[in-house]
Amino acid sequence: MPKQVDHRERRESIAHALWTIVERQGWARATMREVAREAGVSLGQLQHYFSSRAEMLTFAIEFAADQTAQRVTQGVAALDQPPHPRNVLRVVLVALLPLRSDARTISRMNAAYVLEAMHDPTLHQQASVGLRNGRSMVEHLIQQAINHGQIPPDRDPTIETDLILALTGFAPLLELGVIKPHAALAAIDQHLDRLFRPVS
Amino acid sequence: MPKQVDHRERRESIAHALWTIVERQGWARATMREVAREAGVSLGQLQHYFSSRAEMLTFAIEFAADQTAQRVTQGVAALDQPPHPRNVLRVVLVALLPLRSDARTISRMNAAYVLEAMHDPTLHQQASVGLRNGRSMVEHLIQQAINHGQIPPDRDPTIETDLILALTGFAPLLELGVIKPHAALAAIDQHLDRLFRPVS
Repeated sequence: MPKQVDHRERRESIAHALWTIVERQGWARATMREVAREAGVSLGQLQHYFSSRAEMLTFAIEFAADQTAQRVTQGVAALDQPPHPRNVLRVVLVALLPLRSDARTISRMNAAYVLEAMHDPTLHQQASVGLRNGRSMVEHLIQQAINHGQIPPDRDPTIETDLILALTGFAPLLELGVIKPHAALAAIDQHLDRLFRPVS
Repeated sequence: MPKQVDHRERRESIAHALWTIVERQGWARATMREVAREAGVSLGQLQHYFSSRAEMLTFAIEFAADQTAQRVTQGVAALDQPPHPRNVLRVVLVALLPLRSDARTISRMNAAYVLEAMHDPTLHQQASVGLRNGRSMVEHLIQQAINHGQIPPDRDPTIETDLILALTGFAPLLELGVIKPHAALAAIDQHLDRLFRPVS
C-alpha cells in the first residue's frame, strides 16, 4: 500500500476513535491519551499523526464535513433531476441535523468544535471560514431561486439565508429530546414551503 | 449575615468564577481545581459548596437561567402595556442570544451545558425538563395569540413554536462571527412579522 494512503487511512481510523469517545463521553474527555487507547495505538504513535489535540480535532471535523458533503451529494442525486432548490435545501438541513445515528455523531463533533472554537483563535478562524462558505452556498441557491421565480422577488436573500441557517438550531433540541425528528422535519418543510410558495 | 444567605452568596461567587473560566478558556478546562483558584478558595472549601463538577455546573446553569429570566422580566416590563406577544417573543429571543457581552457568557455556559448533557444522564434530564418548560411557555403565548386573532388561525401552534425555538440556532453563528447581531435581529423581526401579520 502506498505510504500516503496508509497515512491517510491511519488518520481516519484515529478520527473515528475520537468520534467514538466524543459520542460516548463528550469532548472534555477526548484527550490524546484516551484517543490513542481507543484507536489501539500508543500515545507516541498518535503524536506521529497529530502533534496536538487541536490538530486532531481539526482533522476529525474536516473528515466529518467530507462525510456530510457526501451525504448531501447522494441525497441530491436521489432527487428528481434537475433538483428543485427547495429539496436541495431540505437535503442539506437533514444532513446537518442529528436525525439518524451517523449524523448524530457528526452533529456532536460539530457542537464540540464550535464550543472549542469560541476559545481557540485557530479553530475559530477555521470554523468561521467553513461556516461562511456553507452560508454562501445557501445564499447562492436562494438568490438563484429568486431569479428563477421559485421564491417571491420581495424576499430578502440575506435574511432568508440566515433563517435557513437558524434551522440548524434544532440540533441541540433533537439531542435533548425536546423536539422529535418528525416535528423538526415538519417545521423545516413548513418553513421551506412558505419560502418557495409565492405569497399572493 | 445569616448563614443561609452567606452560603448562597458564596455559591454565586463560585458560579461567577466558573463562568469566567468557561468564557475565557472553555468548559473542558473548568475543573474543580481551576474554579477554586479563580474563586480564590481552596479546593476543600469549593468541595464544601459543590460535591462534584456536575453539581457546580447545574448550579451555575440555574443561576444563569435566573439571570436570563430577570432580563426577560425587565425587557417585558419596558414594553408598552399590555405587551404584544410578538414583542414578548422578541425579548425572550434577544435574552437567549449572545448579542451582548453578559448574554454571551450565559450563552456559552448553555452551549457547554447542552454538550455535557448529551453524555450525562442527570444533566440530560435537567436540561430536557428546563427546555420543555421553556417550550411550553412559548407555545402558550402562540396559542393565546392565535385565540386573540393576532396570529392567523391556520397556523399550527406546535410548528410555530418549534420554528421560534430554532431561532436560538443563531447563537453559534453569532459566536463565530458568521452572522452579525444586526442581521440576526433583522431575521428574527422578519420571522415574527410574518407570524403575526395575517397572510391574506
